[in-house]
Amino acid sequence: MIEITKNLYDECVELLNSRGVTLLDIANCVLLLQKEYHDNLTVEECLNEVNCVLRKREVQHVIMTGISLDIACEKDVLESKTIEEIMSKDYSLYGVDEVMAYGICNLYGSIALTNFGYIDKIKPGIIEELNNNKEKCNTFLDDIVGALAAAAASRLAHNSR
Amino acid sequence: MIEITKNLYDECVELLNSRGVTLLDIANCVLLLQKEYHDNLTVEECLNEVNCVLRKREVQHVIMTGISLDIACEKDVLESKTIEEIMSKDYSLYGVDEVMAYGICNLYGSIALTNFGYIDKIKPGIIEELNNNKEKCNTFLDDIVGALAAAAASRLAHNSR
Amino acid sequence: MIEITKNLYDECVELLNSRGVTLLDIANCVLLLQKEYHDNLTVEECLNEVNCVLRKREVQHVIMTGISLDIACEKDVLESKTIEEIMSKDYSLYGVDEVMAYGICNLYGSIALTNFGYIDKIKPGIIEELNNNKEKCNTFLDDIVGALAAAAASRLAHNSR
Amino acid sequence: MIEITKNLYDECVELLNSRGVTLLDIANCVLLLQKEYHDNLTVEECLNEVNCVLRKREVQHVIMTGISLDIACEKDVLESKTIEEIMSKDYSLYGVDEVMAYGICNLYGSIALTNFGYIDKIKPGIIEELNNNKEKCNTFLDDIVGALAAAAASRLAHNSR
Repeated sequence: MIEITKNLYDECVELLNSRGVTLLDIANCVLLLQKEYHDNLTVEECLNEVNCVLRKREVQHVIMTGISLDIACEKDVLESKTIEEIMSKDYSLYGVDEVMAYGICNLYGSIALTNFGYIDKIKPGIIEELNNNKEKCNTFLDDIVGALAAAAASRLAHNSR
Repeated sequence: MIEITKNLYDECVELLNSRGVTLLDIANCVLLLQKEYHDNLTVEECLNEVNCVLRKREVQHVIMTGISLDIACEKDVLESKTIEEIMSKDYSLYGVDEVMAYGICNLYGSIALTNFGYIDKIKPGIIEELNNNKEKCNTFLDDIVGALAAAAASRLAHNSR
Repeated sequence: MIEITKNLYDECVELLNSRGVTLLDIANCVLLLQKEYHDNLTVEECLNEVNCVLRKREVQHVIMTGISLDIACEKDVLESKTIEEIMSKDYSLYGVDEVMAYGICNLYGSIALTNFGYIDKIKPGIIEELNNNKEKCNTFLDDIVGALAAAAASRLAHNSR
Repeated sequence: MIEITKNLYDECVELLNSRGVTLLDIANCVLLLQKEYHDNLTVEECLNEVNCVLRKREVQHVIMTGISLDIACEKDVLESKTIEEIMSKDYSLYGVDEVMAYGICNLYGSIALTNFGYIDKIKPGIIEELNNNKEKCNTFLDDIVGALAAAAASRLAHNSR
């Protein structure tokens, strides 16, 4: 059996940071999604939920795979140049990034999925920034961040009621 | 092999109408979702896409099952009184209605899923009306209508580009 | 906010029992799915995982809704007689039962989904019995039992490695 | 709007061939899945369904992305070395490959999903070969082939009844 020696949580946080995303950025998206349902909700509580989501193995695998794809596209090392072109231009009918994000959302139930769809349209804070950054390929990252926020929002909804 | 004698498309349209939903209502939701991406998009084109979605067998099964559940809840004939209570109060953590709606959206890819999440939050036109109608149990119906609109919007996006 | 006074776990166990399914039946399916991967796996360990799955709110909602649908079909109280005919003959292209089962599996990741597909084909033990019982409508129940077993198998796989 | 000049269908067939998979290999998996339900089913009919699946844009995107990931892993050019290790050892709890395969199956409904789960366990013909090939990284490819076969089997089931 494979031995994963490196702490996957730490690697995911580092990968996110290296691409310009802090856990606080994600927590702020959660706050935006949930504040109308919870009086006095703080960003610390949201951050706590984000951390719980980040400790799940399937979530970690999606983060590492998706960000590796974005970086491989930037470095022009993917076999299919068509996919590189599609990814680098953020072609609106490319949906593999959302499919991968659902791999996170599905683990947190239907509330996570609807929140993801909403956040994907309104693109709050960090997600808008990632989208507007034309120097980087953030095709997978912006959906991953949206999925992490949606998953954390679903956790919050389920645990607080 | 079972012989489905009645035309399922007709039955679905009748069921929707009997619950206060016209195909034009759904087409108007599609128009709202897609008009910013298509100049000169008409409600007739949207209606055409809604009709295509309604001709798919798996879609028809979801419509007939979901509306039957809503009506059974109203009539107080479901075995589990807990589920009737949950459905009639539209309990926010009940997600089986969304799960069933994904049975429609998934057939139309990731664009349908994100559109569903968005429409589920902003509740345009007919969906808001269904939600506000306190005399009926529309727990499954409002999500079905949202899913039909999201699926039609995805068809439009894929076919026009 | 709605107050769920009755213990939902107890209600689900009672509903399953009333339809001829014990938690031990489900645990035996889990054992079948996982014994080749775990030496000395016992049915008690499998039962423990089934119990964990049954404590999740979204799982409970699917069980209560699905079994209520089966019983409503038997009692001939569903609005759509077409759906009753489809359900009572267990029409092979009807897929709403599987869609609802995915509402359970998705919460436990991709291992749960592949196990569900496998169990749905080989129909071990209790699932074959439910399928062969022509006096009852078990359209939703057999998929729910398969999903519970698949979810518990996924929990076991993730926790033991 | 991006202009996809190269024919995506052709690129997908070439990519599959370059990794040792012919469309006939996939058609044979379909035949295996469906022959008990259709008397006199031929491999030509199965091949026809596989071709229909391969003409869908979302399917093409998954094929090109997944195979590009496999090749990037072989070439050791992915950013996350942990993911490369996980992929190259085909770690059983890694599920992103299945998540991506569901992006194909979901488009063809619940029959495709259950067939995928089954084929993923029994690993017929080409899928077993891909799994046993230790010189290549086929982590994504084997699930993509299974998903293509499952999707084609679902098309066959829906169209022939």
